[in-house]
Amino acid sequence: MRFVLVARPDDEKALSLADELSIFLEERGHSIICENKTSIALGNGDGIDISSLKGDAAVVIGGDGTVLHTVRQLENQIPIIGINRGRVGFLTDIEPEEAKEYLLKIEAGNYAIEKRMRLSLSVDGEYIGQALNEAVIVSSRPAKILQLTINIDHVPAERFRADGVIISTATGSTGYAMSAGGPIVDPWIDGFLIVPLAPYYLSSRPHLISSKRRLRVELDSTKPADLVVDGQHIMEVFNGNVLSIEKSQKPALFINAGKNFFAKVDSKLKTL
Amino acid sequence: MRFVLVARPDDEKALSLADELSIFLEERGHSIICENKTSIALGNGDGIDISSLKGDAAVVIGGDGTVLHTVRQLENQIPIIGINRGRVGFLTDIEPEEAKEYLLKIEAGNYAIEKRMRLSLSVDGEYIGQALNEAVIVSSRPAKILQLTINIDHVPAERFRADGVIISTATGSTGYAMSAGGPIVDPWIDGFLIVPLAPYYLSSRPHLISSKRRLRVELDSTKPADLVVDGQHIMEVFNGNVLSIEKSQKPALFINAGKNFFAKVDSKLKTL
Amino acid sequence: MRFVLVARPDDEKALSLADELSIFLEERGHSIICENKTSIALGNGDGIDISSLKGDAAVVIGGDGTVLHTVRQLENQIPIIGINRGRVGFLTDIEPEEAKEYLLKIEAGNYAIEKRMRLSLSVDGEYIGQALNEAVIVSSRPAKILQLTINIDHVPAERFRADGVIISTATGSTGYAMSAGGPIVDPWIDGFLIVPLAPYYLSSRPHLISSKRRLRVELDSTKPADLVVDGQHIMEVFNGNVLSIEKSQKPALFINAGKNFFAKVDSKLKTL
Amino acid sequence: MRFVLVARPDDEKALSLADELSIFLEERGHSIICENKTSIALGNGDGIDISSLKGDAAVVIGGDGTVLHTVRQLENQIPIIGINRGRVGFLTDIEPEEAKEYLLKIEAGNYAIEKRMRLSLSVDGEYIGQALNEAVIVSSRPAKILQLTINIDHVPAERFRADGVIISTATGSTGYAMSAGGPIVDPWIDGFLIVPLAPYYLSSRPHLISSKRRLRVELDSTKPADLVVDGQHIMEVFNGNVLSIEKSQKPALFINAGKNFFAKVDSKLKTL
Repeated sequence: MRFVLVARPDDEKALSLADELSIFLEERGHSIICENKTSIALGNGDGIDISSLKGDAAVVIGGDGTVLHTVRQLENQIPIIGINRGRVGFLTDIEPEEAKEYLLKIEAGNYAIEKRMRLSLSVDGEYIGQALNEAVIVSSRPAKILQLTINIDHVPAERFRADGVIISTATGSTGYAMSAGGPIVDPWIDGFLIVPLAPYYLSSRPHLISSKRRLRVELDSTKPADLVVDGQHIMEVFNGNVLSIEKSQKPALFINAGKNFFAKVDSKLKTL
Repeated sequence: MRFVLVARPDDEKALSLADELSIFLEERGHSIICENKTSIALGNGDGIDISSLKGDAAVVIGGDGTVLHTVRQLENQIPIIGINRGRVGFLTDIEPEEAKEYLLKIEAGNYAIEKRMRLSLSVDGEYIGQALNEAVIVSSRPAKILQLTINIDHVPAERFRADGVIISTATGSTGYAMSAGGPIVDPWIDGFLIVPLAPYYLSSRPHLISSKRRLRVELDSTKPADLVVDGQHIMEVFNGNVLSIEKSQKPALFINAGKNFFAKVDSKLKTL
Repeated sequence: MRFVLVARPDDEKALSLADELSIFLEERGHSIICENKTSIALGNGDGIDISSLKGDAAVVIGGDGTVLHTVRQLENQIPIIGINRGRVGFLTDIEPEEAKEYLLKIEAGNYAIEKRMRLSLSVDGEYIGQALNEAVIVSSRPAKILQLTINIDHVPAERFRADGVIISTATGSTGYAMSAGGPIVDPWIDGFLIVPLAPYYLSSRPHLISSKRRLRVELDSTKPADLVVDGQHIMEVFNGNVLSIEKSQKPALFINAGKNFFAKVDSKLKTL
Repeated sequence: MRFVLVARPDDEKALSLADELSIFLEERGHSIICENKTSIALGNGDGIDISSLKGDAAVVIGGDGTVLHTVRQLENQIPIIGINRGRVGFLTDIEPEEAKEYLLKIEAGNYAIEKRMRLSLSVDGEYIGQALNEAVIVSSRPAKILQLTINIDHVPAERFRADGVIISTATGSTGYAMSAGGPIVDPWIDGFLIVPLAPYYLSSRPHLISSKRRLRVELDSTKPADLVVDGQHIMEVFNGNVLSIEKSQKPALFINAGKNFFAKVDSKLKTL
């Protein structure tokens, strides 16, 4: 098989595990392609730019942030297996000591490829990118309340006064959306999870809506706001700007080599 | 058209509205079939037993409980339009003063029929009925904690220590599940919403899982519990009993004559 | 010193620890008085009825339920030190392996006595007992909603529609009140914590009110309810019955031999 | 009596009500002192600088922000009566149409003066001001998580990973703290309400601690944060900075002319 290797370049232990797994896989006859920054950090030369990577599986070693970053940069849809070097990894669900066991399962073909829905995002009609976890609109000025209107199928369905709002996928439901009080959502459900941040109205509850709906969030507030996607600041938004959210045509691909999603999530929740 | 009429038989105003709408529809050339108890309460003779009712639309006047009761009893899948005589009707979303306007829309064919997923429920493999809103397992003894195991796809995914657990549809998400802290779920989403009641573990959060999953709830507790379906007590359950939940083959049918689901829900939430 | 010993009589390990600590304390010259059921379970004769116990400190070995039971039965206010043989003990905050270390601290006088406020409860003006953790009014019929009116200083301050309501002390704030969504309250605060159970109105939030207020809860519902105090079913209550809650003149006494309350609570919360 | 008048200077209706009440009070023989900005906005000359105002009662017309601003600026402790020209006023609990009725009650001496605890705040030992509602430490960079350590009585009692933390008084419990999930707290309770903002750990719950405790919040994070007091940005704080919170020696004074605090709060909550 052709394995792509990405490790968090500023994490010594991630890099040394990358080295170890690289040798392990090569000895078993696989070819390894190292992502550019990982390769340089390992002292193995330039490697391949992340956007040009191709392969049968991408082994990503780091935290959930490393996986989010990799998914965002990949041009080609390579199935990812995440190895956890962060705190609590929902996207990096293989522990370092399990890595070889799971790589052997993959080698043997004992795995499924899971499609994880992503959000395709536009502001005022212009495409600005994709989100695997979530898009967040949040007040630029600390502790200043925003007013937001949620349009569903062209109808203003809800008005929030809040610090902001999270629009999350099922995958993101164990991330920021959970901190803000949202439910855990099955990745088999293609939905948009809407979670207000510190809403002023007590009636502002988390909503899960079908990805077949047309969803738009309008900033209805003289105060500026920030648009943050998968933890990265993207742009400022202003009064009247409209964020449109659609189901992306290009899901992220993950390798599941045998862990039950819910058992996994619930054991991780217990550590939080 | 052939209209079926059901009104809450102990509510004078519901009955007099039934009378009024019955005359209104007959004058416009429609045929009216009155459900048995409604008919007797109106002094119009025996009417038809609810289980044998047939028609193009069932006008149900009362609270959400009246609609839940009607759906449970109907043998034939008649699309329902609910007229609100209760407090806050999520299933009875037409106010009395709007009733004629909406009946004219239906007459003119300006409506859609919405399928609402129901739960098909079994205990230890034996079919016990369907739920439009929710099934609840709750401690029979007040304030005595239960232990419950949630099995998803044959894996014990979560263990609750709680007063009980709610398994709700999207339709039920604005009912008891919401009181217990669950999110609002789009009826276009076929999911099982799992909401623990006063869970002892802080990690026990609401979950929404795909209706394609196999879901079983096992009572894992020496204390007895009650199984309550759509507000009706069904049976006691004991240590080791297993409740299986599946998507029913027979959805409930509702008539939507133009109200946006989310705008409707959110305006009702503001009154709570 | 004169130590009183109470152990959960159906827990072998609690009893054997009681035995061990009893010998340990006697060897150090202290006198030991065994509570009746503990004494019988240990095969040491009748011991002393719990209501007549007197001493400088009561060593209670078991779970929080054992401590609640002991406090309820003690006629004399003996300071308690709880040794945890249950799951997560908020009232039994000494682990078995720490027991001797903490007994030596007590022997050396390195401890403070903490007063924990209790609730004095009456129904329709008749005294019915005291609560260290909480009083709960909860629907007798599963999943049937109650209506309750909270009177504060003779004014109807809030109406709940809910499964029930918890009136908790600060001490009880880490118990059932927490499961129902209440905050953690410092035992130095003499307050009544009111937490609704699955409230139907979204505006029904936990309240903490001063114990100087007059607090009364009226059942305003044709459905019967159960009154449960510190986990024990006390009586049924009916439409119009009024539960009055006052600060008890007799606080419970606990020995604190050096653990910081909040650090202790937060480390326990992490295990939930 | 000597009335001080403060109105939101950019709100026409607040100003015209100020005019009307000013005439009403003068006709009844009271003396009126107008705050500087209000006076200028009314075209009545310079008035008196807010910090130098003296009087028996301050009539403040605007939203809760206007009251917070006034309390912050007053050098002399004048009892405040707030008249609501904002959305939902918890500090401005008299509606405009009730204003004269309540002024007559005050004239007649039918009122009580309520002391509302304030927070005295220091950063790294240097006094930075007082808070009537709350102090907030929140990430300066949108959606970047902070790490915070809560020290209670010199012990690190809790570690948050969160967007930030609110330290609120009872008075502030109906403000930002409520949006973030905190309980309603009786102003008769002198406590520090600690509410995390979008906490990553599920065990991070709201806490209410006695104002007799020593409370310090340490920023334990390489990311900068903002300190916001009663809605006003005060300063940036950095890794290692410590915010100390004490009960202020100077409470804010409010006039209560007969409204029950809880009935008032709960009727306002219903509108949220």
